[in-house]
Amino acid sequence: MTTSREIRLKSRPVGVPTADNFELASVELPDPGPGEVQVRNTWMTVDPYMRGRMNDAPSYVPPFQLGEALQGGAVGEVTRSNDPSLKEGDLVSSFFGWREGFTAPAQAVQKLDAHGLPAEAFLGFAGMPGLTAYVGLLRIAELKDGDVVFVSGAAGAVGSVVCQIAKLKGHTVIGSAGGADKVAFLKEIGVDHAIDYKAEPDLTAALMRAAPGGIDVYFENVGGAHMEAALMAAKPFGRFALCGMISQYNNTDLGEGVRGLVMAVGKSLKLQGFIVSNHQDMQVQFLKDLSGWVASGKFKGRETVREGIENAPAAFLGLFKGENLGKMLVKL
Amino acid sequence: MTTSREIRLKSRPVGVPTADNFELASVELPDPGPGEVQVRNTWMTVDPYMRGRMNDAPSYVPPFQLGEALQGGAVGEVTRSNDPSLKEGDLVSSFFGWREGFTAPAQAVQKLDAHGLPAEAFLGFAGMPGLTAYVGLLRIAELKDGDVVFVSGAAGAVGSVVCQIAKLKGHTVIGSAGGADKVAFLKEIGVDHAIDYKAEPDLTAALMRAAPGGIDVYFENVGGAHMEAALMAAKPFGRFALCGMISQYNNTDLGEGVRGLVMAVGKSLKLQGFIVSNHQDMQVQFLKDLSGWVASGKFKGRETVREGIENAPAAFLGLFKGENLGKMLVKL
Repeated sequence: MTTSREIRLKSRPVGVPTADNFELASVELPDPGPGEVQVRNTWMTVDPYMRGRMNDAPSYVPPFQLGEALQGGAVGEVTRSNDPSLKEGDLVSSFFGWREGFTAPAQAVQKLDAHGLPAEAFLGFAGMPGLTAYVGLLRIAELKDGDVVFVSGAAGAVGSVVCQIAKLKGHTVIGSAGGADKVAFLKEIGVDHAIDYKAEPDLTAALMRAAPGGIDVYFENVGGAHMEAALMAAKPFGRFALCGMISQYNNTDLGEGVRGLVMAVGKSLKLQGFIVSNHQDMQVQFLKDLSGWVASGKFKGRETVREGIENAPAAFLGLFKGENLGKMLVKL
Repeated sequence: MTTSREIRLKSRPVGVPTADNFELASVELPDPGPGEVQVRNTWMTVDPYMRGRMNDAPSYVPPFQLGEALQGGAVGEVTRSNDPSLKEGDLVSSFFGWREGFTAPAQAVQKLDAHGLPAEAFLGFAGMPGLTAYVGLLRIAELKDGDVVFVSGAAGAVGSVVCQIAKLKGHTVIGSAGGADKVAFLKEIGVDHAIDYKAEPDLTAALMRAAPGGIDVYFENVGGAHMEAALMAAKPFGRFALCGMISQYNNTDLGEGVRGLVMAVGKSLKLQGFIVSNHQDMQVQFLKDLSGWVASGKFKGRETVREGIENAPAAFLGLFKGENLGKMLVKL
């Protein structure tokens, strides 16, 4: 038997989550039965979408259950195996995050071919957030030659990959993020115009200055004022990939509302929401492209790392305070 | 020489237009020169989109000019021809509305093949509004078998055609309109659930009652609370055709804002604005389908008619008060 600590949902957050909504618990992991493995997690991810699962409401993923360990992406090493498909020391990814270890059927974990990348990259730019950026930009926003691209949450896990893919493809990129550190990071990854939205009294005016001819593509991670600015600045036939609206996730009602949506009529805009799990067919091409970009030295992964399972709730809460530069991860 | 009366833009409306923004004037029509024709208009159209052209702002059509006759769709008869392509008595359509007659190059008017329909139908269900309904429902909203369709402004020029096409294709249709007369009309054209939005304290609740399983397609003519209700009621992968937002056209600022747009992310919704003039390639198939529906007796055209050029401004203003059942037209 092995002890594992895990984070459970103690109470459902109302509005902005707090540390009180979570509790740390210890469990004894059962020995792996036939066809099972035991895994020690080395990294876990916290993502904004998890906020939705903390509500008791139907969505595209079922709600977390009170008193049970949360779930999410993790990578780790097989420590014991009772299945021929995996052996001790194998690197695996799973959805058994928010815990130090687990025992599960071998089919419930995926053996990870790291393509020469560090394992934790598969929770970030080489994993779900990276694929989200790739799908949203290329399929949903239908990126095409000459497009001017605006990205909100541009210094985040998804946004920073969007910016870099668009730059690698030769586009003019405008990125918005909050604070001087993030603006510096955006310049470092080649963004043409970095907007510090916290320092701008009028985001629409700032966007218009950065893109006087307008934008063709908007990659939406934030919502609210960012969406309004994008509607105002959009050129005819602009395409908006609606990936997330982190400014809205803690609303206890319908929130403030986005003004200017009527622009979408006159400008023939397309606004399209998407969930990456419906676009797994792009995974192979994504990893192929990404490996090339990383090998060429043109792509920078960036992570903000918190250490220890006991700090996982704080890492999650930090997402809504904008504490992360690139992907927020927890090292276990 | 022949006298024609016309309606000119006297001043640009701020907010809701009033009769004072218009003036009636008389002009003498010049004799048709070589290659020109003179036309007596018999019908003209007033449409909500014209409100946008009354502002001095760039849009997909240039603004109307102060002191000049307004423009818009019209049908009429050639009274004098100085071009071999047209002869006296020919039925033509043109964009020289808001006037009793005009002299213009023959190439600036289109000879009308009425397909056995009354001429004024080409300003309504067989013209731009009809094609708008067809394009929005079939191409933009990608209507497919089994879709539940919600239409706002359902008793209007475009909405009433959307409802009927969707019914002819076997769909469940929910229509929203304001007032008992309109609800009665919606039932007459086969709409399954007619919502009188003026009588509903909670439009979202009313829509949920009409479509407990949710909606797949939303045809947007109104904006505001209707959009919010559609976002709340939409099923995953719902498609919204954004045709117009008449509730927003008289705003002097960005208006109130649409809440709940974050739903578009989690439900993978597609919201797409469109302008019918970019979809003229569907015109031939549209008239073919429409002729069949009309011939079978399954399609009802409906018009609200005002008489005389002097009443054209009132007809236009009436659009924003919901005075029209079906297409608002002016008989000249």
